[in-house]
Amino acid sequence: MRLKALGERAVVARIRQRWPGAGRGIVLGIGDDAALVRGPKNLLVTTDLLIEDVDFRRALHPPRLLGRKALAVNLSDIAAMGGRPLHSVLGLAVPGTTELAWVEAFLDGFRKAARRSGVELVGGDISASGQVMIAVTVTGEAASAVTRSGARPGDALFVSGTLGDAAEGRKLLEARHKPGERGEAGRLLKAFLDPSPRLALGAALAKRKIASAMIDLSDGLSVDLAHICEESGVGAEIDLGRLPLSSALRRLSDEPLSQALYGGEDFELLFAVRPGNTRRALALGKRFQLTMIGRFTRDRRIVAVGPNSKKRPLETRGYEHFR
Amino acid sequence: MRLKALGERAVVARIRQRWPGAGRGIVLGIGDDAALVRGPKNLLVTTDLLIEDVDFRRALHPPRLLGRKALAVNLSDIAAMGGRPLHSVLGLAVPGTTELAWVEAFLDGFRKAARRSGVELVGGDISASGQVMIAVTVTGEAASAVTRSGARPGDALFVSGTLGDAAEGRKLLEARHKPGERGEAGRLLKAFLDPSPRLALGAALAKRKIASAMIDLSDGLSVDLAHICEESGVGAEIDLGRLPLSSALRRLSDEPLSQALYGGEDFELLFAVRPGNTRRALALGKRFQLTMIGRFTRDRRIVAVGPNSKKRPLETRGYEHFR
Repeated sequence: MRLKALGERAVVARIRQRWPGAGRGIVLGIGDDAALVRGPKNLLVTTDLLIEDVDFRRALHPPRLLGRKALAVNLSDIAAMGGRPLHSVLGLAVPGTTELAWVEAFLDGFRKAARRSGVELVGGDISASGQVMIAVTVTGEAASAVTRSGARPGDALFVSGTLGDAAEGRKLLEARHKPGERGEAGRLLKAFLDPSPRLALGAALAKRKIASAMIDLSDGLSVDLAHICEESGVGAEIDLGRLPLSSALRRLSDEPLSQALYGGEDFELLFAVRPGNTRRALALGKRFQLTMIGRFTRDRRIVAVGPNSKKRPLETRGYEHFR
Repeated sequence: MRLKALGERAVVARIRQRWPGAGRGIVLGIGDDAALVRGPKNLLVTTDLLIEDVDFRRALHPPRLLGRKALAVNLSDIAAMGGRPLHSVLGLAVPGTTELAWVEAFLDGFRKAARRSGVELVGGDISASGQVMIAVTVTGEAASAVTRSGARPGDALFVSGTLGDAAEGRKLLEARHKPGERGEAGRLLKAFLDPSPRLALGAALAKRKIASAMIDLSDGLSVDLAHICEESGVGAEIDLGRLPLSSALRRLSDEPLSQALYGGEDFELLFAVRPGNTRRALALGKRFQLTMIGRFTRDRRIVAVGPNSKKRPLETRGYEHFR
């Protein structure tokens, strides 16, 4: 059945059934003018948009995974602060011709991702539109938040996971690879379609005071590194030979290094570590895949060190929405 | 200059200049992965979407007023809880062909409305889209929140302001009346283009414990009354002769009563008052325009009492987004 046959209120009723709104300090969940919850002393708030044909293609992105991703991109921001997510609200605009089944699969994905990370949906808004637009806001708490501005010259530069997989996955998807695919292509597709926010890592780095600055990789390594450098008033030197590239990326991409540097949406964590803490950071590498890829410098340029120790300025281009 | 020539980061930089992010318990404002603020114990969270060609027409809605309205519709939800607004995040998706001047006028409107109501913008996201989409989330605090579920049989039913003006204003606007117009048409246009959230009234009703249930009128009197009745497990009887209609609506509308009952977006407050509190509510009428329009009943139907005391069931139809 299509939404325009069902009507807005019936859709809202279905959402409400899914989230009875208990736990997590919820006093009032979905169904009043605003949600009422017990607020943490150190409240994090972050919001992200996912827009059809800009951030995803409806025909290529299974709605269940899109629902997970809509939450995951926000959880990644909470992770980058070293925080714990608490509540979310969901704004969803879809064409009236959309099948209810699509919306239900989207909501199921969102709910499962929420459950897994301990997040409750407490409110939202639904509307009609010509293209699907998803606006999620997530709140969280951070006993000791890690900002973008704490890096100092001499700090080591770490990154989690592997880089460039999501950008290559997006490329493969648009070149007619299919979401359910297995093997190496499947791993790249999954990185784009269904990213995992690094909540446990972010929280561990914050709690143990290992990260002096942190950001999640949404715009691409070069741009996100530039954000940290700008906010911290430092530069950085990265060693191209150390960038963690997956074997899938190396094998399937024409331009693995370029995807690792400039491809966005890895949703890994990039963080700074004081020299005295690098051993503790490396020890965390037993639980999390961590790589030291460079260091922060007094010289405010951002340079890449290539083979033969040649240095060149790193272009800080990234994904541009307004094209 | 158009956004696609300027680029996303330049737009974000301009937004950040406008909101240096001080006060209101802000630890970190715009510019990190998430905002960090001091959270109130009783935290309200609400979100609303405004979608081009569904909620507004870009050619007819001055961007400055649209910016005010994008915040106002959320503040109205905080008002309906009897709360005080604190922080906001803004998701804005616009076509790359949009002129920077449009975005700046929108932001100026948003900022002025925020200042007036003591709200700080602490974060957001910007993206490209085919049609303008605005997603605002507002947080607030409520020492004693007023819900939709507290009405009891016998409670009086009050409404603030006048009803139906916004719906008629929307109609006039689409019939080629112009935003800047004066006189009676101008008042109706303003009700649609630039609604005023009833924050002071909502807070006064909550603080003095005068309202036993409350909702803001966004979907229209009949639908929003049905929401209160459903959540409270009661019915209601409204006296059509008492509905507060502006002289502008009476004079310019072909169907003033229908606009008052079914027209949405008045953003006035509809609330229940225990019999013992009606005098205190009426006393508040010196500061706010309040009208007693009916009462809540044990019989769960919602009926309208017309001339000659004839009762008829009230149709609870309202604006349907998915058409």
